[in-house]
Amino acid sequence: MQLQLLSHDESQRRFSKVRSEMEKSGIDAVLICDNADLYYLTGRVFAGYVWIPLKGEPIYFVKRPVEMQGDGVVEIRKPEQIPASTGIVPPAVFGLELDTVPYAMISRLQNLFPESRLADASAVMRASRAVKTDEEVRLIAESAEHQDHVYSLIPSFFTEGMRDFELQIEIERASRLDGCLGLFRVCGPSMELFMGNVLAGDNADEPSPYDFAMGGAGMDPSLPVGCNGSVIRSGTTVMVDVNGNYTGYMSDMTRTYYLGDISSLARKAHQLSVDICRRLEREGVPGAEARRLYEIAEEMVAEAGLKDYFMGHRQKAGFIGHGVGIEINELPVIAPRSRDVLKAGNVIALEPKFVIPHTGAVGIENTYVVTPQGLKRLTEAPEQLISLI
Amino acid sequence: MQLQLLSHDESQRRFSKVRSEMEKSGIDAVLICDNADLYYLTGRVFAGYVWIPLKGEPIYFVKRPVEMQGDGVVEIRKPEQIPASTGIVPPAVFGLELDTVPYAMISRLQNLFPESRLADASAVMRASRAVKTDEEVRLIAESAEHQDHVYSLIPSFFTEGMRDFELQIEIERASRLDGCLGLFRVCGPSMELFMGNVLAGDNADEPSPYDFAMGGAGMDPSLPVGCNGSVIRSGTTVMVDVNGNYTGYMSDMTRTYYLGDISSLARKAHQLSVDICRRLEREGVPGAEARRLYEIAEEMVAEAGLKDYFMGHRQKAGFIGHGVGIEINELPVIAPRSRDVLKAGNVIALEPKFVIPHTGAVGIENTYVVTPQGLKRLTEAPEQLISLI
Repeated sequence: MQLQLLSHDESQRRFSKVRSEMEKSGIDAVLICDNADLYYLTGRVFAGYVWIPLKGEPIYFVKRPVEMQGDGVVEIRKPEQIPASTGIVPPAVFGLELDTVPYAMISRLQNLFPESRLADASAVMRASRAVKTDEEVRLIAESAEHQDHVYSLIPSFFTEGMRDFELQIEIERASRLDGCLGLFRVCGPSMELFMGNVLAGDNADEPSPYDFAMGGAGMDPSLPVGCNGSVIRSGTTVMVDVNGNYTGYMSDMTRTYYLGDISSLARKAHQLSVDICRRLEREGVPGAEARRLYEIAEEMVAEAGLKDYFMGHRQKAGFIGHGVGIEINELPVIAPRSRDVLKAGNVIALEPKFVIPHTGAVGIENTYVVTPQGLKRLTEAPEQLISLI
Repeated sequence: MQLQLLSHDESQRRFSKVRSEMEKSGIDAVLICDNADLYYLTGRVFAGYVWIPLKGEPIYFVKRPVEMQGDGVVEIRKPEQIPASTGIVPPAVFGLELDTVPYAMISRLQNLFPESRLADASAVMRASRAVKTDEEVRLIAESAEHQDHVYSLIPSFFTEGMRDFELQIEIERASRLDGCLGLFRVCGPSMELFMGNVLAGDNADEPSPYDFAMGGAGMDPSLPVGCNGSVIRSGTTVMVDVNGNYTGYMSDMTRTYYLGDISSLARKAHQLSVDICRRLEREGVPGAEARRLYEIAEEMVAEAGLKDYFMGHRQKAGFIGHGVGIEINELPVIAPRSRDVLKAGNVIALEPKFVIPHTGAVGIENTYVVTPQGLKRLTEAPEQLISLI
């Protein structure tokens, strides 16, 4: 079994970004163990650690699976074997993933080099991963193509009297048959979601504990988000925002479906969501301030008199967009107090959404790559409100 | 929206266990924020913290969802508002969940009481949760009933020439339609799995990076576990071990299916798995040492000459059983070096499994509650090898 599944050039591109961020932060070596970061660095998930010195070659310490081959691969049973390994020099400043790795594990790893000063490698990895390589963009675009296809099938799944979760289950099945891996990676332990969110009618207005753009009461208090068992009724909308992880890299797309006649207010808000996307696609060039994109959206919403419904109604989300890649919540964040500045190669999802009482959620979400010409759309499914029948 | 969904008595039972563990560890107050623990303490997941003093009433600090009601509920935006809240006394020894909460968040929470000595609340919560209340056992038994039903349908999903993931997707759909919540909670960040594991033929022998009992190559190197796209062939087995989370509390069950004639070695190993379960059901009384249960299984395997295949072949798992409840990897652990001693009310899954080259995985897994009379089985589906046709 070969450890490094990335091409030599692709691997070099990623390590060189990581090293450049390490240099900016004054870090001499990092030891990486978060699954998403391991996947980024090698092209596969394994149980173990990647040692990256600022100068010198990386070393891959592998606990599992057995039989791993590759340059720089060292088999270990426990991290305490790392310091004595060939090529390891104790770093003056030692970076670990402080934002994602539990306290007890960090304390254990910190003890490998008791003389070193501890530094944060989470920010290093997050900044590196925010600017995608062409290969990463290609994997996200491939996921988006699958998502486009699955969303096109959604009206064919609908039957009269269907409940929200019944529709969601058919979408899940179609996604899985089309190659969706199912797993929905979120950075940090507090945001949980299964395969995404299908919100019918007023359930879209139910506040949830999670920091996703939209809520829903959920089917059980142990996972209070998404479907709540509502029958899909005439005069209401169904917002579909389900898992786009087909390649290890996710696309993120929302489309809104409806049944019967829906209010002109809901139609107006949906069109505004599309208009906001069009406008931000032009504004989203390298160097653009993320918070300025948010402000533009907010201004358009205020001008249309739709502020009460924007990004939720009873409970509002604090952002309209976010980076996406291996995880759903990467950098940059498109939010009022964000200090992020767009860079060429960022991949972001924009999701200006509205919740209209008695109708449901409306709006769209697209995944884009930032280019000198503005945002290039990767999710190409039709954006208008789509009738379920 | 009501915060405490547990009855007064049930809530008291759980808090009294937590306080008793706090007392043993010399902890004056804990601040809990892990989702699984929040669910345990209140009967729902929310974004926020539960403050539990050794003496005095708990306080529930809620960030999200909005509109939360209940005794002791305090709305906050950030944890820094906690120390100034009514009723908070800085503890001499302050417990936080060090095993599950990221380092950066623990550092932030530790700063709420800079004079306090930091202690580990993970062990407190883990020990409390290991002994289930009757209500928790009831929820696990309810999950098990659903799982029994879904597993009984599995042969009806099989069609000639089917691939492993196609069968898995039909099992997923049936589970979801029967009320499975989908989310598969694992304690700690490094073990990832979608809806469980369906292992056909030799794919069961592919080593994976995760610390589950069985592996599988997976469909993609970003999630190298489970189905790998194998066609289900005559003369091989399909081991099914899928998500039993129907109530927030999981049951864990494995059954083995087969196609055509399978080797007598595989049949013998399967029967031994059933025999090991029967034997351990008698041995698993309160006071029994977990490691002794493992040794008994190992002795039975050695006697039958099946050691090479036990708990994997190319890569072996280091345990034959584990506690199960809100998460799949609770206490006690049935492993050679485990120091756990069984207690009445523990709920454990036993999974003595074998991987037979050229045939696949065989064996069963059941979920049990520990009683003075031994292990009481909660998963009641037939245990013999089941033909897919």
